[in-house]
Amino acid sequence: MSRTLCVVQDFLSDAHKEKIRGTAQKAGFDVQFFTTPELSGAADCLQRCEVLYAGTPAALRGTSAALRWYACSAAGVDPYCQDPSLFANPDCILTNSNVYGTTISEYVIMVTLELLRQMPYFREPLQRHEWLVSPPIRSIKDGTFTLLGTGDLGRTIAVRLRGMGARRILGLNRSGRNVDAFDEILPISQLDSVLPHTSFLIMALPGTPETVGILDRRRIALLPPDAYVVNVGRGNAIEQDALREALCAGKIAGAALDVMEPEPLPPDNPLWDTPNLILTPHISGNMALGYTRDENVRLFCKNLLRYAAGEKMMGTVDRARGY
Amino acid sequence: MSRTLCVVQDFLSDAHKEKIRGTAQKAGFDVQFFTTPELSGAADCLQRCEVLYAGTPAALRGTSAALRWYACSAAGVDPYCQDPSLFANPDCILTNSNVYGTTISEYVIMVTLELLRQMPYFREPLQRHEWLVSPPIRSIKDGTFTLLGTGDLGRTIAVRLRGMGARRILGLNRSGRNVDAFDEILPISQLDSVLPHTSFLIMALPGTPETVGILDRRRIALLPPDAYVVNVGRGNAIEQDALREALCAGKIAGAALDVMEPEPLPPDNPLWDTPNLILTPHISGNMALGYTRDENVRLFCKNLLRYAAGEKMMGTVDRARGY
Repeated sequence: MSRTLCVVQDFLSDAHKEKIRGTAQKAGFDVQFFTTPELSGAADCLQRCEVLYAGTPAALRGTSAALRWYACSAAGVDPYCQDPSLFANPDCILTNSNVYGTTISEYVIMVTLELLRQMPYFREPLQRHEWLVSPPIRSIKDGTFTLLGTGDLGRTIAVRLRGMGARRILGLNRSGRNVDAFDEILPISQLDSVLPHTSFLIMALPGTPETVGILDRRRIALLPPDAYVVNVGRGNAIEQDALREALCAGKIAGAALDVMEPEPLPPDNPLWDTPNLILTPHISGNMALGYTRDENVRLFCKNLLRYAAGEKMMGTVDRARGY
Repeated sequence: MSRTLCVVQDFLSDAHKEKIRGTAQKAGFDVQFFTTPELSGAADCLQRCEVLYAGTPAALRGTSAALRWYACSAAGVDPYCQDPSLFANPDCILTNSNVYGTTISEYVIMVTLELLRQMPYFREPLQRHEWLVSPPIRSIKDGTFTLLGTGDLGRTIAVRLRGMGARRILGLNRSGRNVDAFDEILPISQLDSVLPHTSFLIMALPGTPETVGILDRRRIALLPPDAYVVNVGRGNAIEQDALREALCAGKIAGAALDVMEPEPLPPDNPLWDTPNLILTPHISGNMALGYTRDENVRLFCKNLLRYAAGEKMMGTVDRARGY
């Protein structure tokens, strides 16, 4: 009986499918493609498959104990780690796809410049066709930045900030272990002493029990009044009401949120009209960029060959740790 | 009789004035500070001064044949070159201040990302509190860029694009002479053959008779439909009506204009509501950034010592050539 690979993805081009088909053949797998798990034939394939390449818990829910590897096309795998019942086989391997650094780092540079250059100040006057003189602005060049999270995202963001001439980039991670591209790394346990000296905080943390509410009301109050906050990790890392109140009261200079709670944000949520806040609908790290799609498929194909050869795969997730 | 330096600037801090005072003393100059040429005492000082450090033609208009050097704090000196009657002394030296590369290049990176990431598409839905899925986007990483103008601005922009991972940066200048930071330089005379292969055009040209209307209707039509245009040079470099029509008809993908004609743009000008256009009120390269102000004063002080010593100054402008 042949081994089965089930692919449930809606972003694949013909070239992507061709590449996956060729790799599956080399690895000794039959492959079937579906754009959603609801399609006819998908249920049977999900039940049988040994390997699943998908991006939603809905696909995983259709699998059986035959599943030995779930290749997740997303970077954040918190939904899978928080719900072990999704895996009929408790030893099923979970890998994530750390291929969003390019698109997310470009998003971060964009909103960082929008905040430093006071673009929220211009938003409404420009809508009214009003020509304004610029208030004082700041630059990335010679600026200092604090990155909460030094994984694939944090590292790529640090490299881009460096390319723009940043003077000092401090990273915080769980272990305090050094990561290149940063000037200094501190353990997250020192966050309280770092925040009062942070003028620009970029949050790129995975969703784990330890990161929920990590920037709470007390810590937001530790930030200086000229501080900006950007979040591209998970919305629940920030105590959202407290951030909104700090922005309304001018206790921090501004913020950009691409992730929030809940998503989509309901039209009547007060976050929409918060001053000095740039709000975007979770667009920093999706499949909108061709480079991300290509890298996603490339990573999966590399991993499929490694899986077939019994080698260590890239992006293996410790489901207990959550990343 | 002592030599007189007249300073007409509204951006100077006490530290800046202290630095200028100390340098003037070393150079053998008496210095007087005014924030506008209309202030009491300014008229007399302007009449007498040998050196003027200012940023508006209004200040220069008050000077006499005694003026031997006009240190202009702006980068663009087209108003001075187009009106020789401003200089009572025909041999008066004119220098400009090429210190806007940092702030203008950060503006360019910001709007480049806003265009590539389709931010104009989100503008109105976000105002209506609408949560949208992202359309396809592009990245600076691995992108190709054409820069019209390879002076201080063009070069600094190229360095920033490189820092963001751009794959290929083509520069066009008058001579076709090589400039570091570019992959290739071509003479502007080859513009017509370059435009059809240009997917991102950044214009950073000085205002000279040759640059007026350089991107005219015929050349706009040479751009491919996926092309974006950014202008941070002079508004009159673009045939504005033709650009607006191309944007309205979807013949190019988008544009960002920080300079336009006229400035300020009247509230009823149709440019305000042009689709896929990012319009900002000439904020890319002003004195809003502290770094720009510091560099401006630093450059002037260096030049003042060179002037006093009879050495060649930085930023000397050929008034006939216009830059």
